[in-house]
Amino acid sequence: MRDFSPLHKARLKYSPKLAGILQKGIKNTKVTYGEKTSAVKDKEEIQKLFSEVYGEPIVSFSETGENLIGDRKNVGVILSGGQAPGGHNVIAGLYDALKESNPENKLYGFLGGPSGIIDGKYVEFTDEFIDQYRNTGGFDIIGSGRTKLETEEQFEKTLHTCKSLNIEAIVIIGGDDSNTNACMLAQWLKAKETGIQVIGCPKTIDGDLKNSQIEISFGFDTATKTYSELIGNIMRDANSAKKYWHFIKLMGRSATHVGLEVALQTQPNIALISEEVEAKKQSLKEIVDYITDVVVKRASIGKNFGVALIPEGLIEFIPEMKTMISSLNDILAELEKNPEFANIQNEKKYEVISEKLTRNEAFVFNSLPDLIKAQLLMDRDPHGNVQVSRIETEKLLIEMVKKNLKELAKEGKYTGKFSEQAHFFGYEGRCAMPSNFDADYCYSLGYNACVLIMAGLTGYLSCIKNLTEPADKWLAGGVPLTMMMNMEKRHGKMKPVIQKALVELDGPVFKEFEANREKYAMDDCYVFPGAIQYFGPAEVCDATTLTLQLEQKAAVTC
Amino acid sequence: MRDFSPLHKARLKYSPKLAGILQKGIKNTKVTYGEKTSAVKDKEEIQKLFSEVYGEPIVSFSETGENLIGDRKNVGVILSGGQAPGGHNVIAGLYDALKESNPENKLYGFLGGPSGIIDGKYVEFTDEFIDQYRNTGGFDIIGSGRTKLETEEQFEKTLHTCKSLNIEAIVIIGGDDSNTNACMLAQWLKAKETGIQVIGCPKTIDGDLKNSQIEISFGFDTATKTYSELIGNIMRDANSAKKYWHFIKLMGRSATHVGLEVALQTQPNIALISEEVEAKKQSLKEIVDYITDVVVKRASIGKNFGVALIPEGLIEFIPEMKTMISSLNDILAELEKNPEFANIQNEKKYEVISEKLTRNEAFVFNSLPDLIKAQLLMDRDPHGNVQVSRIETEKLLIEMVKKNLKELAKEGKYTGKFSEQAHFFGYEGRCAMPSNFDADYCYSLGYNACVLIMAGLTGYLSCIKNLTEPADKWLAGGVPLTMMMNMEKRHGKMKPVIQKALVELDGPVFKEFEANREKYAMDDCYVFPGAIQYFGPAEVCDATTLTLQLEQKAAVTC
Repeated sequence: MRDFSPLHKARLKYSPKLAGILQKGIKNTKVTYGEKTSAVKDKEEIQKLFSEVYGEPIVSFSETGENLIGDRKNVGVILSGGQAPGGHNVIAGLYDALKESNPENKLYGFLGGPSGIIDGKYVEFTDEFIDQYRNTGGFDIIGSGRTKLETEEQFEKTLHTCKSLNIEAIVIIGGDDSNTNACMLAQWLKAKETGIQVIGCPKTIDGDLKNSQIEISFGFDTATKTYSELIGNIMRDANSAKKYWHFIKLMGRSATHVGLEVALQTQPNIALISEEVEAKKQSLKEIVDYITDVVVKRASIGKNFGVALIPEGLIEFIPEMKTMISSLNDILAELEKNPEFANIQNEKKYEVISEKLTRNEAFVFNSLPDLIKAQLLMDRDPHGNVQVSRIETEKLLIEMVKKNLKELAKEGKYTGKFSEQAHFFGYEGRCAMPSNFDADYCYSLGYNACVLIMAGLTGYLSCIKNLTEPADKWLAGGVPLTMMMNMEKRHGKMKPVIQKALVELDGPVFKEFEANREKYAMDDCYVFPGAIQYFGPAEVCDATTLTLQLEQKAAVTC
Repeated sequence: MRDFSPLHKARLKYSPKLAGILQKGIKNTKVTYGEKTSAVKDKEEIQKLFSEVYGEPIVSFSETGENLIGDRKNVGVILSGGQAPGGHNVIAGLYDALKESNPENKLYGFLGGPSGIIDGKYVEFTDEFIDQYRNTGGFDIIGSGRTKLETEEQFEKTLHTCKSLNIEAIVIIGGDDSNTNACMLAQWLKAKETGIQVIGCPKTIDGDLKNSQIEISFGFDTATKTYSELIGNIMRDANSAKKYWHFIKLMGRSATHVGLEVALQTQPNIALISEEVEAKKQSLKEIVDYITDVVVKRASIGKNFGVALIPEGLIEFIPEMKTMISSLNDILAELEKNPEFANIQNEKKYEVISEKLTRNEAFVFNSLPDLIKAQLLMDRDPHGNVQVSRIETEKLLIEMVKKNLKELAKEGKYTGKFSEQAHFFGYEGRCAMPSNFDADYCYSLGYNACVLIMAGLTGYLSCIKNLTEPADKWLAGGVPLTMMMNMEKRHGKMKPVIQKALVELDGPVFKEFEANREKYAMDDCYVFPGAIQYFGPAEVCDATTLTLQLEQKAAVTC
């Protein structure tokens, strides 16, 4: 028997709140079908690729409507991609609903992500097993993986596994890519008339799997609360010691929803938003100048401290960096054909590379601190490409700001002190114990996935709505996956994908930040969210993110 | 009006539990004097230096005994040194007790640490002011500072400030150094017959200000819980993704109490203890070999992941590193007299330095990765010394382990994969909202400081005992600061200092770790403590550290 912490033990006993509309139980739930749907873009291509599952109606569950709920199925479940708090509760909700439908039903968990269903590696869940994981963080219940379910061979093997276990439905818990693949699998299984259904559940701490129907992906709430706790603590430290500038990088390669939510929660002096950098085509120099400007202004009123938030994916949103790195990949591939290149000293390498870059690219490359140049050369992926995610962007900015400040000091325009601390937060939040919101939301998503299965649907994403209200008022239903899709270029090819939701610069969340950031920069408006609470007053324990609250408020008003 | 988070607002309303023995109120508290005391070592020197305050008895408070509690004093309070959770509550407890004694009493807070009392910069506390800071983290209520109160001139200025505000007692909230200085000030003020008293309060997240009388310093509980939360989350991530080795450095230059407590709370695969490294005179190579060995053994059973805890001060406990760095300081000072040295490339610098080091030292220096060699040369303090605290020890170990693994792979002795993530935690915990334990303990320490003042004592440390019991059973009293002192060499001179409590290798806490670490290394015994809770069941919210529990249990048994 493993050791559980006191909180862990207490959380195992928590009863997650089920969406109000589902509280009468799966056997009393009825289905209402909405209008037929169409893809968000590239309708024809999507329809062609997903002929079997395209254009299905949005469905909603209620106490009145068609009574189409079955009660007998074996189901398999897969955790796919990066961890997000609440994954265990999706499985628990699914399990409870299945057993409630019919105690004979079985739930199989495939081990290590999608490869588990391909290779037929699984566990069968029991009460005892599930009870050890209720309301806990992590994906360790069955593990996760990044294998993409997309080839004919993989589909064949998946079918084989399902047949051998008499599985009639598969639930895939994943992000946009995994749910795209869920839809491909649904299409394939239906075309083959296997009768096997596929249902997805929206997971990602990045918060970029959302749209007109899906209010938020699970995990975003807990992860942003965890980061906000840490950043609030660091702010209180900065404001007490008054001697450090903390540069904090936050996990997330693409969208900056995490950075924006954390910025609203904690009100830092600086928060960079990748989408804004890209939209305004900002150069690295412009970004560094902006930060320098805030540092200098604060120093002029005696404040030689502050907190700056930096999105992990920033570099890929700076147009000139993107271009330079792309050229660098080609140049390095060429240079490294000569084995002697490896043996020359870094300084010499930089010269050789600069000569091969265009003038603009060389300017950008040479503006980088040596530390970062060395990282660009060292950290390469198996294809030889620069691993942008390994670049210490927070240190890059610190070094460049320092250089600026040195110049300004020489000119007599800056007399402050600049001492820095660099941080990176990501792994701290992905497996935190789910907040009450995520525990409830995930349990409802999983339970609802079972309802969708019993309603005989396939190619749908489990959908719980009205999330800024108490769980008693939450609504439930399903959204056809094809409805969220469009065609995008991936590795040089056009592919169907679920459209990622980037931060909208004219949306209510960014607007709120934009309206306040100058005040945040100079006044110390720091907010200290503290640790996630599970037992206290509702306003402390149950409220969800400001992002969702602002978005819902705007949706109601317009 | 600034923005408060929901938890922040809720915590402002929390009523900290006062030590049971003080609950009848300051006017009903009586004093019992114990035996005379003597210094822990170097009795003669300490007695000579502290003739006025030396050898006083331990005092304890109770409901029976001498009734010597006064009711009228103005008091000044200072926060000194690094932040620790609960400092605001020490001030709140002191304030409440002072006002309870006599509503005419005034409490002044000196701004920015000890320099505030020297320069006469202060605020007078009011109910409204204090109420904004109850049960919150940080030292931002009045700020802190690292000025050392030790010169005649500083004492004169302090006296001047006290006279101008009619202050009859000073409370200094600080670590070992600050309390040593508190004792020097008490001595000076008594020798001058000023009648001004000085009382200390034991603060430090490091947990190394403790002894036969002081069970623990405040802040240790909250800081270790915060780090344990983060490390537990990272473990759950490691155990879910099963692909990273996380190397986590923990703040603390000297003792490894934090590392040991966190190791017991979370059960990582590896936890280095500086005191053990020093006692066993381990070389850097031995440490790296030990880590490599665990990595290889885990890989052999398919576990290419894990978590290793590294104390920030490690390098200074490795005898050969200490010697090498000491020589390096001298050599660099000499070399840098030649301005041309700055312009030669790093590789050349390393050669020049190696030639000047002894053979052993050069061996150690050259075994370091380039990244670390560069840091040794770059990050220097104002005196030109290597800043050991800026060395990225976690990356040093990662690089050296990688090198080992490469060799072993060549020899066919290792076939695993090693992907690393480096972390440093420190600032995340120093200003966290105090746990219920720290909130209660600090409030009691501050309240008790007032009782000591009203009892007419000076040169004492506020002491609350029986801390593993519920607060209702806590005891209170005072310990003469001279009792904890001995003479130690600091910057080449013998000085009186409060003896630091390092981890005892034959103590119950290390023994517990030692007995289990092999199991932790190979089995995945990870424990997930989760976020600090303030409102839940008592076993989740109110229990203090395992360190204190094990120490108290051992003290009772022996």
